[in-house]
Amino acid sequence: MTKHQFFKRPVGMTIGEIARITGAVPREGTRLDHLVTDIAPLDQAGPCDLTFLDNAKHASMFAGTRAGACLTAAEFESKAPGNLNLLRTPQPFGAFVAVASALYPESLRPSSLFETKGIAPGAHIHALAKIENGVTIDPGAVIGSGAGIGTGTVIGANAVIGPNVQIGRNCSIGPGCSIIYAFIGDNVIIHPGCRIGQDGFRYQPGPKGHTKVPQIGRVIIQDNVEIGASTAIDRGGIGDTVIGEGTKIDNMVQIAHNVTIGRHCIIAGQVGIAGSTVLGDHVMLGGRVGLVDHITIGDGAMVGALSGVMSNVPAREKWFGYPAGPIREYMRQVVVLRKLAARTKKDET
Amino acid sequence: MTKHQFFKRPVGMTIGEIARITGAVPREGTRLDHLVTDIAPLDQAGPCDLTFLDNAKHASMFAGTRAGACLTAAEFESKAPGNLNLLRTPQPFGAFVAVASALYPESLRPSSLFETKGIAPGAHIHALAKIENGVTIDPGAVIGSGAGIGTGTVIGANAVIGPNVQIGRNCSIGPGCSIIYAFIGDNVIIHPGCRIGQDGFRYQPGPKGHTKVPQIGRVIIQDNVEIGASTAIDRGGIGDTVIGEGTKIDNMVQIAHNVTIGRHCIIAGQVGIAGSTVLGDHVMLGGRVGLVDHITIGDGAMVGALSGVMSNVPAREKWFGYPAGPIREYMRQVVVLRKLAARTKKDET
Amino acid sequence: MTKHQFFKRPVGMTIGEIARITGAVPREGTRLDHLVTDIAPLDQAGPCDLTFLDNAKHASMFAGTRAGACLTAAEFESKAPGNLNLLRTPQPFGAFVAVASALYPESLRPSSLFETKGIAPGAHIHALAKIENGVTIDPGAVIGSGAGIGTGTVIGANAVIGPNVQIGRNCSIGPGCSIIYAFIGDNVIIHPGCRIGQDGFRYQPGPKGHTKVPQIGRVIIQDNVEIGASTAIDRGGIGDTVIGEGTKIDNMVQIAHNVTIGRHCIIAGQVGIAGSTVLGDHVMLGGRVGLVDHITIGDGAMVGALSGVMSNVPAREKWFGYPAGPIREYMRQVVVLRKLAARTKKDET
Repeated sequence: MTKHQFFKRPVGMTIGEIARITGAVPREGTRLDHLVTDIAPLDQAGPCDLTFLDNAKHASMFAGTRAGACLTAAEFESKAPGNLNLLRTPQPFGAFVAVASALYPESLRPSSLFETKGIAPGAHIHALAKIENGVTIDPGAVIGSGAGIGTGTVIGANAVIGPNVQIGRNCSIGPGCSIIYAFIGDNVIIHPGCRIGQDGFRYQPGPKGHTKVPQIGRVIIQDNVEIGASTAIDRGGIGDTVIGEGTKIDNMVQIAHNVTIGRHCIIAGQVGIAGSTVLGDHVMLGGRVGLVDHITIGDGAMVGALSGVMSNVPAREKWFGYPAGPIREYMRQVVVLRKLAARTKKDET
Repeated sequence: MTKHQFFKRPVGMTIGEIARITGAVPREGTRLDHLVTDIAPLDQAGPCDLTFLDNAKHASMFAGTRAGACLTAAEFESKAPGNLNLLRTPQPFGAFVAVASALYPESLRPSSLFETKGIAPGAHIHALAKIENGVTIDPGAVIGSGAGIGTGTVIGANAVIGPNVQIGRNCSIGPGCSIIYAFIGDNVIIHPGCRIGQDGFRYQPGPKGHTKVPQIGRVIIQDNVEIGASTAIDRGGIGDTVIGEGTKIDNMVQIAHNVTIGRHCIIAGQVGIAGSTVLGDHVMLGGRVGLVDHITIGDGAMVGALSGVMSNVPAREKWFGYPAGPIREYMRQVVVLRKLAARTKKDET
Repeated sequence: MTKHQFFKRPVGMTIGEIARITGAVPREGTRLDHLVTDIAPLDQAGPCDLTFLDNAKHASMFAGTRAGACLTAAEFESKAPGNLNLLRTPQPFGAFVAVASALYPESLRPSSLFETKGIAPGAHIHALAKIENGVTIDPGAVIGSGAGIGTGTVIGANAVIGPNVQIGRNCSIGPGCSIIYAFIGDNVIIHPGCRIGQDGFRYQPGPKGHTKVPQIGRVIIQDNVEIGASTAIDRGGIGDTVIGEGTKIDNMVQIAHNVTIGRHCIIAGQVGIAGSTVLGDHVMLGGRVGLVDHITIGDGAMVGALSGVMSNVPAREKWFGYPAGPIREYMRQVVVLRKLAARTKKDET
């Protein structure tokens, strides 16, 4: 496949190896020594591809598949053709991801775009920066005085790291990012064009215009966070803006000063979180959700895509709409209004 | 005009030449040898400016115009002063655009900001990149191994082109863009700060946090596409993210992995399109429209500005609102609710 | 505090000095020679910190504070412990900001991230650029022919300034910005990653696709404007896009071609303003407000966060909602609909 212009062609692994690393159980008759060298969707997979099926909706595609092997759940096994190499597991997609990760290890963390070993010519490193051994810095990157970069970390081309910023180990900072006034943990991925640590947006209104309120806090990004392209995170006003361990943030998300985000949250693209708002752990925000300032989103709460939230969301509740409320209540409003409008239409005709 | 600090002062063209390139028909008495050297709105145009009128609303401005020439439709001709040089055409604005393009050819595609000929000193080109003759690369640009750039293409200052990316001919890649895991056709314009080809946003939830799902697809951008500043397009998960020929995308648009966009679509600023959603040809999305994942927008459908779409939109329908529906139905809801609220107010007073 | 890794530890000032620069009146018994070296919130302040109280809600925190000094209004004075150094002023927060600014002067305008004096090695300055004395240019910045930069201005690392752009004095242009076809006044702050001056989004539809309409205008940014990270401002089509004096714009705001924004406006994060829309002076737009094209927002109007505005907003009105209307009317609609839905629910059970 042409994607091998971008990723190394996998060496592949046998079905036996797949069973071993995933814990999946091969169906009797499955050829354990068959070599799988790639992954593909069920309807596109060929004899060297691993695929998966975890949804009854797609079970009809079983019949026509040419896949070299398929991970599936026990409940779908009977629907698979007898000659298909089948691996049974309660979590077919999870097992598929494990194999995909083993086949394409370089896909798990962006690396140098310039085949740089160490520090590329054309990177600008301040003499007082503290670069550990084993750091990769691509051309055009700029690293300020006192900045510290841990081993295994890659700084992308034309990224800018401000003075005294600390970045941990095995991180990937994308091309064109700017990171200032920030502490970043280990195993953090920041995709291209992110803006981290600039001034928050606060002014004191006055008769001759707005006076800037000094922003002297920081951004703290804990371990295993991933941040999508062009996301912006402002530093705290007096305290800090904090992104908790393991939280994943998509592209073009705006996070204002003094926001605190808990651990293992999922925050989809174009979300906006206004100043001082607090998210608990395991919060999920759908695409383009907006949260006003100074509210709290409880642990495990979920907010549906495109919602605008103007008040606290209790833990584990599912909210939706604008202004958002519990999803069932909001959807009832949508239905009531649609019926009312339809009735009006009938009256008119 | 001071804009000539930025664009070369046009040499100009006679009204006869304008008639020839646009097919517009000069009114009797119009001086065909009169020289037009610039363009301007009807109320600001002077004796050397070309202007146009294509809207009855503005016909009253005819009286006071000092324009050197005016393109207009037959229906407005009688309202024009007798001494105005007039060119009649069924598409006054289209003809105006044709003349503007001829007067300001450099406005049609961004070029080097550094008057670079060839490859500027301070650009970082990998030894294994394949740069055709006639390519312009501004200072600070970084081009990875195996990347191919076609003749006539301009790579802006501090742009980053990843390894093996292929960019066609006569393209313009703006300053500060990053383009990775992508194939780009001919005559493509990508404005500054775009983020193309980074990982899509997908994780497999688990008890110890979210596991990253490998993203091994690509971004395919076909010929004649234009992409506004700071737009982000993620690469496909297994397959590709595709932008069809001639499609025009505005600033700060977020396009998630595996999205397919057809040909000649218009996608306005701040639009968000979630994963695997499919747009047909000639779709028009107004500003800030949001589309959830895995839906289909049919050929020629239009979605009004600021709408949030949560379901398929049939071909050629006009939708609006949140959650969006056919525009007439949604507007009926808006009106019904306003009336209801107004009545409540009256009851209270 | 660890923030002193990023900002110079303040020399501090006595309470007497604070009284002098703010006009606040020390309560009898307040030690005028007590040295304050930092600022902190009321509940976190220690003996060397200045704090403030301007809200009855927080008055209960007075009891436990260890602050070295507190600015407050006369009405709260009686609630303060007798041994607290107290400064009375009608505007406690304004006075606090004045002291914070004096303690952290470097926080008021971003400066070089590379301790650059003058022009850094690794900056690419065209021979015909006009750089005044006293300009700071960080590594990787690219400045085009004829561009003018006024004294005291800092150009961030990897920023790109196009040919003939004029930037005034004492400005700060963030890392990775691109500024083309623009005139920028004095004391302007532009945070990282902004995209200023690229083509507006306009096409002439036709049978073979969309024809680009030349964009030959400019962006004019007046004095004392501040612009947040990753904001995009397109240049005018024929005329100009204008940002008025003293206006403050947050992160990730999209401003289309020919928009005119008045003086001293406040525009929060993720706002979108479509083409040719006009804002008066002192307009306030909350987070993520969307304004469609060709509308007018009157002087002093306010639009609440997450609203979508599709029509003119009269001066000094407060609007909210989608489609937005006067806030009271919209909230009445919200309440009516909620009641109606709740009643339906009851009927069902």
